[in-house]
Amino acid sequence: MPKVTKEKILKSEVLFKGKDLNLHRLTVELASGKPFEADIAERPDEVIIVPQTSENKVILVEQFRRGVGETLLELPSGKIEKGESAATAARRELEEETGYRAGKLEELAKVFVSPSWTTIKRIFFSAKELTPISNPKPRDLDENIEVVEISFKEALDKAIYGEIQDAATVLGLLLTQRFFTS
Amino acid sequence: MPKVTKEKILKSEVLFKGKDLNLHRLTVELASGKPFEADIAERPDEVIIVPQTSENKVILVEQFRRGVGETLLELPSGKIEKGESAATAARRELEEETGYRAGKLEELAKVFVSPSWTTIKRIFFSAKELTPISNPKPRDLDENIEVVEISFKEALDKAIYGEIQDAATVLGLLLTQRFFTS
Repeated sequence: MPKVTKEKILKSEVLFKGKDLNLHRLTVELASGKPFEADIAERPDEVIIVPQTSENKVILVEQFRRGVGETLLELPSGKIEKGESAATAARRELEEETGYRAGKLEELAKVFVSPSWTTIKRIFFSAKELTPISNPKPRDLDENIEVVEISFKEALDKAIYGEIQDAATVLGLLLTQRFFTS
Repeated sequence: MPKVTKEKILKSEVLFKGKDLNLHRLTVELASGKPFEADIAERPDEVIIVPQTSENKVILVEQFRRGVGETLLELPSGKIEKGESAATAARRELEEETGYRAGKLEELAKVFVSPSWTTIKRIFFSAKELTPISNPKPRDLDENIEVVEISFKEALDKAIYGEIQDAATVLGLLLTQRFFTS
């Protein structure tokens, strides 16, 4: 294996503590021996769910996104709460955002969102054997969501041709291609 | 189309200004009419390059990543500098990180990294007709990189089976599957 040096952390200080976001300033020792400062964002890990119906459709949500000021079509997703497992978070977010319960949940992949400057991991799940919930839990107060059910083929086309713009949604759809028949 | 409300921004204040990262606190008006505070991270957009050799190999880089404290195998990538176009940034990062120049560069996709809380876009490029540079530009001082050339099939397997852990790399490889013959 090539020899990439693991950097030693010389100092770590908290720059900012927010609701979901903490910023740290790390001082690391570079391979050259020189010190270097890097700002790292710490946020909760996230789950992304690919809900597949028995009719080969995928359930998406349309949502206003504050980071970019646009309404985007996405897979259901959300933050993992403190003490919660990824699978429990996936079931909870699926129920809250779409009103469906998954009979079968399978972990697909676990990736770092942007490992140069954030701690965040994204864990992808496939959700099958969906049944509507009679008494859905209320959504988070700040969520502004519409549920959209479309064929997997249509969703994948939207992902490939740039109509779906959310990175996690494009990745989730590409990862589950093999589960859907076209 | 379903009716998802675009939120009105009531207030925007700067919480933190860093080297590459600015934090803003937005106060928005929710669909219910109530105010809500959200912290948004602003960072430069990024390019990701999928360099394909004439032997059907892909050129990856192994790099220590400070956000997660691990050495990861990734596609070449980097931030777009002020005033720089995405294509120029892609050519520059490819040359700096791998020592190759691309004869042919094609934009593949443009996605939002995490649109609920950051502004960042990732623009993916396919790079072909690669030639080694005789006088490669020096790398950024803080970069600690090894170049790794492997068959596309091996890279894709690593992406699918979790050995490649960087979200952008997994997405870039899945997006370019159709360009490589196995």
